[in-house]
Parts: sequence; C-alpha cells; structure tokens
Amino acid sequence: MSENLSIERPTLILSKKRAIRNIERMVRKAQGSGVRFRPHFKTHRSAQIGEWFRGFGVECITVASVEMARYFAKSGWRDITIAFPVNLREIGRINELARQVQLSLLVESSRTVLFLRQNLTSRASVWIDIDTGYHRTGIASSRPQEVVALASEIARTPSLSFSGILTHAGHSYEARSKHEIEAVHTDTVNQMGRVRDALESAGFSEIQVSVGDTPTCSTVDNFGDVDEIRPGNFVFYDLRQLSIGACAEEDIAIAVACPVVSKNRSRSEIVIYGGLAHLSGDSLLRENGTESYGAISRLGKKGWGPRIDNAFVSHLSQVHGLVKADGKLFEQIRVGDALMILPVHSCLLSYLLKEYRTLDGDTIQSASSVQSQVTHSF
Amino acid sequence: MSENLSIERPTLILSKKRAIRNIERMVRKAQGSGVRFRPHFKTHRSAQIGEWFRGFGVECITVASVEMARYFAKSGWRDITIAFPVNLREIGRINELARQVQLSLLVESSRTVLFLRQNLTSRASVWIDIDTGYHRTGIASSRPQEVVALASEIARTPSLSFSGILTHAGHSYEARSKHEIEAVHTDTVNQMGRVRDALESAGFSEIQVSVGDTPTCSTVDNFGDVDEIRPGNFVFYDLRQLSIGACAEEDIAIAVACPVVSKNRSRSEIVIYGGLAHLSGDSLLRENGTESYGAISRLGKKGWGPRIDNAFVSHLSQVHGLVKADGKLFEQIRVGDALMILPVHSCLLSYLLKEYRTLDGDTIQSASSVQSQVTHSF
Repeated sequence: MSENLSIERPTLILSKKRAIRNIERMVRKAQGSGVRFRPHFKTHRSAQIGEWFRGFGVECITVASVEMARYFAKSGWRDITIAFPVNLREIGRINELARQVQLSLLVESSRTVLFLRQNLTSRASVWIDIDTGYHRTGIASSRPQEVVALASEIARTPSLSFSGILTHAGHSYEARSKHEIEAVHTDTVNQMGRVRDALESAGFSEIQVSVGDTPTCSTVDNFGDVDEIRPGNFVFYDLRQLSIGACAEEDIAIAVACPVVSKNRSRSEIVIYGGLAHLSGDSLLRENGTESYGAISRLGKKGWGPRIDNAFVSHLSQVHGLVKADGKLFEQIRVGDALMILPVHSCLLSYLLKEYRTLDGDTIQSASSVQSQVTHSF
Repeated sequence: MSENLSIERPTLILSKKRAIRNIERMVRKAQGSGVRFRPHFKTHRSAQIGEWFRGFGVECITVASVEMARYFAKSGWRDITIAFPVNLREIGRINELARQVQLSLLVESSRTVLFLRQNLTSRASVWIDIDTGYHRTGIASSRPQEVVALASEIARTPSLSFSGILTHAGHSYEARSKHEIEAVHTDTVNQMGRVRDALESAGFSEIQVSVGDTPTCSTVDNFGDVDEIRPGNFVFYDLRQLSIGACAEEDIAIAVACPVVSKNRSRSEIVIYGGLAHLSGDSLLRENGTESYGAISRLGKKGWGPRIDNAFVSHLSQVHGLVKADGKLFEQIRVGDALMILPVHSCLLSYLLKEYRTLDGDTIQSASSVQSQVTHSF
C-alpha cells in the first residue's frame, strides 16, 4: 500500500499516466483517420481532466446534459454538443449557453424543433438523432423520409443550423469479441450512409455523420465515411470494455481503494468498506454463472497490480462490499488493509466518489465536488 | 404538474407529510413495545429530516459510517451507534467522535478489540455483531463460545464498555409476505436469545439485544425479548418494501420527478431525463419476468397519484431512462411533461440527487449538499 495515499475511506484512485495514454491513443487514431474528435466528457466529468485533452489540441466536446455543458463552458470550452434529446424544461439555460458557446443540440421530433423555433433566442446547431440498433432514442434509420421531414422543419427555423446525423451504437456493448464490435461499426456506418443519401437526394448538402461509442472507436482503425467520433468511456475503460475486447487490462485507469473491515473464514469472504454508495452496481457474469461487481487488485508503490485470480466482489449493499477470496488472498489480507476494486463500469464512479486521487497523491476535482470542500459519500 | 415545483432536471420529491407519518408510526410502535428506538439515518442522510425525529423525542441514532456520525454529531446528536464494523483506518476520527458524543462501535473480531485497546483514546461502547442468517458480517449465532471469548477481550479493555449483541436480519428483504417476515423476526429473536443466554451463563450481565431492519420492524407488533430497534428505510419506504408487504403504497414518501424528452411510438416507450446517475439501479421482477427499475405516477396539486398500471421503467443508462407505457399513458404524455418515478430502493437516492424538494416547494439539504450550493448530478 502506497502510504502517501493514506486511504481512510473508499477512494477513487486514478492513474494519470494511463488516462493520458488512453487520450493520446484516441487523439492519434482520430488524426490518422481524418475524423473530428469530439470526446464525450460524461465519464470523467472533470474540468481538470478536460485540460489533459486540451493539451493534445482537442477543442470540441460532447456532454450528456445542459448542466454538464454549463460546467465545461465555465472552464473555457467553446464548442459543445449536448448528445441528449433537448430537455424543453431547461430552455432558459439552453438560451444562456447558446449565447456563450457554439452549442449543438440533438433533436428527433418536430415538436422539439417547433419549440426551439419559438423559444431559442440565439443561434444553435442541431443534429438529428438516428437509431441504428440500440433502440434508446432517435429516428429509426429504416425511416429516412421521417429524417428528411424533420430536416425540412429545421431548415425552416432561422435560429437553427442543420449539422447532420448522429447516432450512439450502444449495442456494441453487447458484443462479445472485436469481430462482433467491428460488425456493429460497419453496420452503423452503412445505415448512416443510407440516411445521408436520402437527405442528399432531398437536396440537403454537407450532411455530417457523427458516431462514437468506446467499443467501436477503440477497435476500429478505419472509420469509413464518418466525420466525427464521440467516445467517452475510453479515458478510463473498465472491466466491461475489457470483457468485450475493447481494451487491455493495463488500459484501465481508475480503481476504488476500499478498507478491509472484516473477514469470514467459513465463507472465505472479506468485507470491505465500499458498497453501492461508492461502486457501480453493474455486474458481469463470471464463467461459473455468478455475478461479479468488481475485480480485486492490490496497490503497490507504482500503482495497482494485475487482477487477482479467484477473487471478486460478490455482493454490494449500501456501504458494505463482500469479496470472495480464495485461500491464498484470504490469508494474506488483514482487517485494516485496503483492496483495490477495478470497476465493471467506470461511468458512474465520479457521481458517487466526487473526486479523484492520483497515484501521486494529488486530488482532482470533478463536477460533483464543485464548491464543496467536504465530500460526503458515506 | 404542480407548477410551484418547476421541475427542470431530475428532482427528488419528498412528501413531508408521509415521512412524518412514517416516523410517528414507528415511534409509537417502539413506545408501545417498550423498546428503545434508535433509527438508522442512512436512508435520509439529512440533518433537517433528523430534526423531525427529534420532534418525537428521539435522542439516539444509528449511522453506517464514521463520516455520517461526524455529520450528525455536528447537528447536535449526542448518542450515536456506527452499525458498521470498525474501520481501523479512521481511528483518528473515531477518537475525535468518542470525545464529543456517546459513541457505540460494532466489533466482531479480537483483532479489532486489541486495536481499540491500543488506539482508542476516549471511552466508547461496543456491540458484538451477530450473524442471524443474512451472512454479511458478524459472528454466527451458532458459535456462542466465540461471542463469549470476544466479550472477554472487551471486558479486559478499560476504554470499552460492553453493551450487548446486535444483528441486522437483512434476509428479511427476501421474504415474500408478512408471514415470512414475521418468521424471520421470530427466528432472529430466538437466535439472539440463545447467544444472550450463553453470555449470561459465562457471567456477563445486562446484555442488551439490538435488532432492526425495516421489514420486520414494520410488520411485527411484539418485538419479544429485544431492547432496541434500528430500522432506517421506513422513513421513505419504496417499491421493494411494498412488494414484500412491509408498507402500503401511500407510505412511500419519495419519488423522482423526471422530464420527458422523447417518445417512440413503435416501441410504446417514453424517454426520460433520469438514469443511473439519478435513480437506483435496483430492479424488481414483474409478473411477466421483465425487470422494473421504477413505477410511474403523475404529479398533481396535492402530491403524486397512484402507480399507473402497465407502465414502468424498463431500462436505465447513465442519464437516460426508458419508460414502457401502454397506449393510454403514451398518448397522454408529451415531450416536455414530467413523470414521477417511484423508486425500487430509496436508500441510494440521496447520494445521487443530493437534496430534497418537498411538495410545498421547500429545499431540504442532505449530507451530500453540505457546503455545496450548486448540485451537479448530471
């Protein structure tokens, strides 16, 4: 245990080196493919980590909410896409943002476009959301005429400038191999191409295509006929990305350090201070059919070590975590030690733990810690 | 929609009337049964809501962490049990607390007792944690001699005063009827009685018994040979408690108001701004085998209405929620409306949403909002 980190409570530990390596790799890939890199900042949610992207020349970003756009606008980002359907109830704040930055919005219904026509007070760009198989939001790519009709409504709206079509192929997370991920990407690009063709046949020009989920952006080298990618999770990666082949274990850049508070020999279980209030409730199925809420590692002088075989987080309640540990780990670990928990899904951790501690012992704030010097994630 | 609430983003709405009714009912039940009421404050995590308990004469509380104990000590609570195994890494703060309040700690191993003997600088009480079937922490009730041995270590520690035995029968959450809940309670009390007998046979006297999970405390009228109850969830209840018969629908005191941002007619789905960053990831199985992450209701002038049949939250990602809605609700709801989501599990909501809005429009802070005037739960 690196004593300079002095872990007292569940603590979100960040390998700055790995995160920067992940950022640089994606920047280079986008440059090599000639696509615009508009990283999604919903995973890290930190102005300070945002600066690491800026260091590689990144100038435009994606966020998931108006509030997140406001946060990053305050730290100097001037080209922001909110990749979430326009929330009409926040029109006041959207207008504020549209005055300050080059704002892009996501639409999928004429109701929203009509609302913006009447209520948007500054110019904004819009993308039409296309459903390419994730079935969460967007107009189905099989209905290009609906897209054309919506684009026509946009064209009749002076305050809106039509950028193109955007999709999130979130079903790539269900892939089980690099090959399956690549198949999702090819299919996505083909679907988006057909929608673009329909728009161009209807007289629209300079239609851009924006895609971007971490699995495909990590796996694919040639993005094909795409103008922009928007991956987010890749900055930290996690066990789910590892399980589908989107990253290597050495790419996972965050883990949660948790104090050991109890041991039960008869069940070969270690109890940690770290539950659903600190760790994502997402799980992965293990080979034997049991669910794992995290992998186990130990913190050494230069960072955490590789995952320990035959040990995993088997249960989470509000503040307790249970670690199933085989005999060897069980004997090594003592009450009062700390274990590193590698997350199944990294995107929720900054909501729960509010700030990062780097392996060098520095504290990095996130949006959750703004104006709060005391963090209460108990 | 009560316009005085002006919902812009996912907002945690609290019915103060229902919460106070829940509190009063449990206070009266404890008084009627002659047991000490030491409510667990881990569900609401709010100094202001704590005052509602104080209004009914409650003077002692349970918390789940040292940090939570510090928070409530600051708002004047002077008799606090931390019902979580002692975290040796926080001994500095434990010592601070033990100087300020009547502090009770939970132990289950001689290692921890020896550590406290050497490091605890002020007097504290201790309870021995007993496992009565939940299998999370504690010494198995079937091993009373281990309990006696640990009590002897405690007796040899001048800074520690031995209060008795404590259990959390969390397996009551797996019950499927009031009858099953009562059976868990009877079994728990019997197991605790046998451990107490063993301690008394070994010469220990005035051994108290502390139990308390919301299902049994809500259902059982006669607590039997118990000295103290520690339920927590009952202040708000939730769909899980409703599903096992521990509460009525009118007892559920919180819900999350979520803006509607999109609709998909072909899937009969409504998309809300409200995801895993705002709602608990816990789910309940519906009759047809699908999972529900929340029930749906609408907000009227006097609060939210009853659950709407044939509508439920079917999927959550980071900021998106999907609501499956039958034809009638689907047609009624428009983009820009708000829906009320009744939670499957209420205990995590205050971590995610940080403050409460009452039906009267008042804001109630929780520990997560301390020193933070801006909340960022995007």
